[in-house]
This record gives sequence, C-alpha cells and structure tokens, in this order.
Amino acid sequence: MAKYAEMTKEQLQEEHKHLLGAYNELKAKGLQLDMSRGKPSTEQLNLSDEMLTNIPTLNDVFAESGLDTRNYGVLDGLPECRRFFADLLEVPYKNIIIGGNASLRVMFDYITQCLMPNALDNGWLASGKPVKFLCPCPGYDRHFAILEYYGVEMLPIDMEDDGPNIAQITEAIKDEQVKGMFCVPKYSNPTGCTYSDEKVKAIAAIKPAADNFRVIWDNAYLVHDLVEPEDGDKLLNIFPEAIKNGNEDLFFEVCSTSKVTFSGAGISAIAASEKNIEAIKARMSKQFISNDKINQLRHIRFLKDVPTLMAHMAKHREILAPKFQAVDEKFTEGFSACGIAKWTKPKGGYFINLDVMEGTAKRTVSLCKEAGVVLTGAGAPFPYGKDPKDCNIRVAPSYPPVEELKTCADILVISAKLAACEKLLEK
Amino acid sequence: MAKYAEMTKEQLQEEHKHLLGAYNELKAKGLQLDMSRGKPSTEQLNLSDEMLTNIPTLNDVFAESGLDTRNYGVLDGLPECRRFFADLLEVPYKNIIIGGNASLRVMFDYITQCLMPNALDNGWLASGKPVKFLCPCPGYDRHFAILEYYGVEMLPIDMEDDGPNIAQITEAIKDEQVKGMFCVPKYSNPTGCTYSDEKVKAIAAIKPAADNFRVIWDNAYLVHDLVEPEDGDKLLNIFPEAIKNGNEDLFFEVCSTSKVTFSGAGISAIAASEKNIEAIKARMSKQFISNDKINQLRHIRFLKDVPTLMAHMAKHREILAPKFQAVDEKFTEGFSACGIAKWTKPKGGYFINLDVMEGTAKRTVSLCKEAGVVLTGAGAPFPYGKDPKDCNIRVAPSYPPVEELKTCADILVISAKLAACEKLLEK
Repeated sequence: MAKYAEMTKEQLQEEHKHLLGAYNELKAKGLQLDMSRGKPSTEQLNLSDEMLTNIPTLNDVFAESGLDTRNYGVLDGLPECRRFFADLLEVPYKNIIIGGNASLRVMFDYITQCLMPNALDNGWLASGKPVKFLCPCPGYDRHFAILEYYGVEMLPIDMEDDGPNIAQITEAIKDEQVKGMFCVPKYSNPTGCTYSDEKVKAIAAIKPAADNFRVIWDNAYLVHDLVEPEDGDKLLNIFPEAIKNGNEDLFFEVCSTSKVTFSGAGISAIAASEKNIEAIKARMSKQFISNDKINQLRHIRFLKDVPTLMAHMAKHREILAPKFQAVDEKFTEGFSACGIAKWTKPKGGYFINLDVMEGTAKRTVSLCKEAGVVLTGAGAPFPYGKDPKDCNIRVAPSYPPVEELKTCADILVISAKLAACEKLLEK
Repeated sequence: MAKYAEMTKEQLQEEHKHLLGAYNELKAKGLQLDMSRGKPSTEQLNLSDEMLTNIPTLNDVFAESGLDTRNYGVLDGLPECRRFFADLLEVPYKNIIIGGNASLRVMFDYITQCLMPNALDNGWLASGKPVKFLCPCPGYDRHFAILEYYGVEMLPIDMEDDGPNIAQITEAIKDEQVKGMFCVPKYSNPTGCTYSDEKVKAIAAIKPAADNFRVIWDNAYLVHDLVEPEDGDKLLNIFPEAIKNGNEDLFFEVCSTSKVTFSGAGISAIAASEKNIEAIKARMSKQFISNDKINQLRHIRFLKDVPTLMAHMAKHREILAPKFQAVDEKFTEGFSACGIAKWTKPKGGYFINLDVMEGTAKRTVSLCKEAGVVLTGAGAPFPYGKDPKDCNIRVAPSYPPVEELKTCADILVISAKLAACEKLLEK
C-alpha cells in the first residue's frame, strides 16, 4: 500500500470504501469501550490489596511516635510518611508536607493561595491586571482546567522531545503578569517525554519579571517506568539546580500514590522551599486539623521505603507494559504504510501521544465514539481545548484488558485512516 | 464561706493564702494534663474499631452500584452515603454532597469560593470593599481563624441562651458589605445552647442587603447528645424554613463524622440548595476527581442508617456523660459558695462554657498552665481572640480520663478563685 499523500483520487476512494466497510463491521458489534482516562486497571488496584487490612486491630493504629492516628493532629503528615517522600523526591525532610488523597487538589489549592492576597508574596490578583500562565502543550487537561476556572490566561509553550521550548519561556516571562508555569517533567502527560538535564537546568535558572512566579512541578509519574528503571528516563532533581540560582522559592513539586496504590484513596506529597512550606502550613492550619493519618499509616506500612516501592512498581509494569506494546503493535501494523500518523513510545507514564493527519483529530475521536470507543476529547491537552493543528489524540491504554485494548486500537486506526481519506478527498 | 464580693480585705487575704497553699501543692505534682480541645478519648475511638477491617477482601471494595471504590470517579460521593446524610439532615438526596475528612476544610473552601470571582454570584471581594461577617460569640475559634486569615472583618453578635441576638443581626445586615454569618446551631461551641425554633425561623427569614449573603450552618453536634436523645435539644431544620422565605440559597450546612467515628479519618457532608450544589460541584470538578470512596464505604458499612448511628452515639454518650458530670460536680463544689463563676450544663456537644469573674479569665488560664493543665486560650471563642469581659473559659472534658479530669477541674477551680482574690485585692 502507498502513502495516502501519494495516492490518486481513485486510489483514495477505493481505500475509503474499504475502510468504511471495516469500520461499519466493527461498529456493528455495539461495543462500549473506554480509553479516555489514565485509570489503573482492576488488576493493578489488586496489587495493593494488603492495604485494606494492614491495620487490623486497635494495637496497630499507632504511628512510630506512639501517636494515635485515629485522632486529631499532625497537620503536615506522619513523620514516617514525610521521610518516605523526602527519600523518594530526594529533598530534605523539612521541605516535605503530606497532602490528602489527590495531588490535583493540592495544586488547585496552591494556585488558589497564590491568587489571593494572603500568599507568601503579593497575590497574583493583587494588581487587578490579568494573570497569565505558561502551558507547555500538549499537556495535562486538568491543569488547564484549573487555570480556565480562575480566568487565568493560558499561553501555550511548545513541547519538544526533551521538554518545553526554553526560548519561548524566556521571552514570555519578561511580562510580569506571567505568574507561573505547569510542568509534568517526567513521562509527561501526554507525550511521555522526560525533560533533559539541559532543560531542567534552564528552567531552574529562569529569571521571570514577576516577583511571585511559581512553577508547578507535577512529578506525577516519577516511579512509573514501563521499562526496567535502570533503562528508564532519569529526571534531574529540580531543587538543587534551583538553589544554585537562588530560585528555590519558584518551585512547587507534587506527587501522589494515586497510580501506586488506590486512585481515589492514595496520599500525596508537596516538596517546596522552607519559605513556601511555611506559607502553605499557615494556610493549612486554617483549613483542617489533619489529613487522614490512618491512610498515611496504611501507606507507609505497605510501601515501607523506596526499594519496596520500586519492587511494587515492577508489578504495575508487568501489567502495563504489554498494554502499551499491544497498542504500539496495532499502530505500527495499521499506520506504517499510509504515513498519516506518528506516535510516541514512552518509557513510562500513562499515555501514548498519537498525532494523526492535521485537521482530522476531532473527526477521528468522533468516529471512534460512534463505533463505541470513548477517547479523551481531541484538543483536551491544549489550553481551552484548542489544538491548533487538530492532530493530537491522547491514548490511555492502562484501563482496558489487552484484548479489549486491541479492539480499541483497531477502531482508532481505522477511524484515523478514514478521517484522513475524507480530508484528502475534500481537496 | 461567704461570697468573695462580700468579704473584707482581711478575709480575702486569708482566702488567698489558703488557695495559694492548695495551688502550690497541686502544682508541685508536676502534672501534664490537656483540656484544651474537643478531642474524642481513646475509649471513644475504640467504638469504631470495626471500621479498620470492614472491607477485608477485594470482594468487598464495590459500592452498591458495583463501582470499584479504589478507582477514580464519583465526584459528589457514593449514593449510599449521600442517602445516609440526606436521611440524617432531613434534606432531599439531590441537595447532598459528600466531602473529605474535615468539615472545617469544606467550610474553608466554601468561604474561599464565595470570596473569589467565580462563585455563583459576584465574589465577595469583587467590589474591592472590605468584607464583613457576623460572628455570634462566644463561638468556634476555628471559624474565626478562617475569617481572620482572609482579612474578613468580624462583627460580634451576642449569643443568648437560645441562639444569637436577632435584633443585632437584623441591624447589621443592612450593610451590604456584611456577607455572611457563622452558626453552630445545635449544642453550640462553646456554650452548648441550641437555637430555639423562634430564632431558627427568624434567621431563615433574614433579608440581608448583600445579594450574596451566606450563613454557614455548622451542624457539628447534631447527634451528639449527652442525655437520651428524646430528652435532648431539638433543632428545627433550617431548609424548609428558608424555602418558605425564598432564602434557600442563603444556607450552607455541614456536618461530619469526626466525633462519630475517627477524628482525622471521618467523612463530611454538605447540604445546600440546588443552585449552590451546582456551583460547588463546578468548583469540585476542577479540584479533584473524587474524595476517598473506600473510606465512604467503610463508613456506610459501619454506620448503616440513622437508627444504627443513634445506637452508636449512645455508646459515646455513656463515655462522655460521666465526664461532663464530674466537671459539673467539681464546679458546684468549688464555686457555689464564692459566687465568682457560672457555667453551662449542656445536654450535648463537647464543651462546658465557664464564665469566671470579669477580668480574670486570662490569669486563670495562665495559672492552670503553670500548674500543668492546658486549657483553650482565654478569649479564643471571640473574634480576634478578644473577650471584652475577659471572663470566658472553654472547658473541653472529652479527652482526659475521669480521674484526670477531676484533677484538671480542681486546678481550674483553685486557679479561678485565686485569680478572683488577686483581682479583688488589687482594688
């Protein structure tokens, strides 16, 4: 088969007819499949079943310090949990706070704190001028949703294979109304790329015009390798680099166990400078008396330490890697000849980033939906949901079983090719 | 013994000498006791031990709908939990959202939402003018701390035996910068009073000048009777009354299981009008994907329904009532003759409100501290921590065992009397 771009109109019409037949056959099956979100599968959740009962009696409710985890207190988290995350994120213990069940909530709350007049520095809203934010994209739709909710203007920054375009960042931060940037620095959502040392160093050294600029360093996939960790991507620790540049207050790092233990019932952690930790704790002390410390205790009893965590992540990898491979095989099989798509082969994270022919992503997602496969909305990884090239599709292979996933991938391939034929035949 | 106010200087000096001897004797014991916060005792926490293991296997993680509670989803809470709280608060199911582990956080977040431009109506900060709030007091110090954090001006409203002074409220809300009011309508913190039907009806009918006024109806102690519930206080449901007055959007009710199950690991609930629920959910959908649904499931499996909850609360009552009685007996024994103090005998809640001689509360708390008994800071139940009469002390009898509590009460009685003698001798 030739590349679509090189086909004659007649060849394209023939191909279209052939694809439509295959598409209608799949559609007729009346499937109901979902490849829309980065949800762990049931099999993955089962890996943490011990946590359901690892505090079996009243004798077990006490933290290392002897504290009863069922009662009030310990605003910033159990010391053993803080130590665990300090080891994991390679930052000092004093720079760690344990958060609730969602790092998203921690980020929402920090953005809120920064907007309002009582953050560490002047609140972003203080001047009354519009607040702007840098959004490397494609990026995480829920980051952008927070900014949109607060009416923060989003400025797209191009994502490259090794992180965001630094020249664009450098230029944009000359505007003092540009107050921050969202980053998923390792196994980025959705491209799967990891920021190179060079990019991390450049970001650590930025000199924004705003004196209250903050980079939200969402390290969501830090231990989520799809290959042996020694072969996986390595992310340079942002804090030592930031400190070298006197920039430690500019970075707010989060991570969570949402994709390590239970997605709705994990724990999260914040790493930040002492100055920022102080401001966050000042706010937290008005917000609640403690997070759920029993759940913190369940986690530390189960995850224990970083080596135990890594052994646990190997079990996730055993389940996830074949799914990514299955999708990759289907894409290779379906797309290699026609030349209308390219996709990432990430070494970690939860997504494959598929770029279909320009101007056909929306149509592809819509065709998939009609055939019973729900994908993330086309454009979602872009500010305001607007993909300028209408080519990006975020593929989330984690949830469906492998056989279902293959069917999803088949439908996606046929839909993308069908959309491409339609587009080419329009001309 | 005579009343202090009727004693001669010589008699007072004699009494002071006698008290100081007793005080120093107790102080010499080097005690370390804490009566500062409304924390459940270990014995109370043990009542919910079943919840540690009531989801023992992977077969048990499914909600009524079949949903796996370990995964993402269900923003507003498990339907069975929402039904439980709808029954408890006597509001329709559609008006309930399940919150996280702290109703304080839910309130903090709602105040934040109301302040900012993206709440249902114009944000309270929108006009740029100072925001004011009504604070019936003595009241809950953590409510006032939220307002102080946000720079909201607090206007004290007198608490009477059956709720806040309505005339003062009616006058204050003529100012359109007065944007809301905090209420603990049942077994109020700290006075223990319950709002009368008359006061609830009057509050339900208020006509504030502000078009975005909100009453935070913190129903923290709704099932926390210290007597048989049929002999306990009854609180009129605010919502039907508010609806009669077209005021349903003015009320935001919260409650939690912090003093029902585990204090740091409970669940909370919001009751609000459909319009408010919609605005809250719009915000929540940007904040997180779900609260901890495993914990919701643990709760509903354990608490089951309102009758089961009430049977559980009877067990709390058996532990708590003797503690309140012990303190009351000590106060009666120590204060009856000297006439320097009065205190409440609440039928529920977590506090005894002690009024000592004017101008001596701070000194009393300080004397207690020196003798090894930590109390809530004097003035804490007032905006900005300022008790205009310096007479109010919040007594929290729940945490210490009865014998310890008796010692605490002894020290408190002697300290209050010593402070009164000092004050009278100054003249």
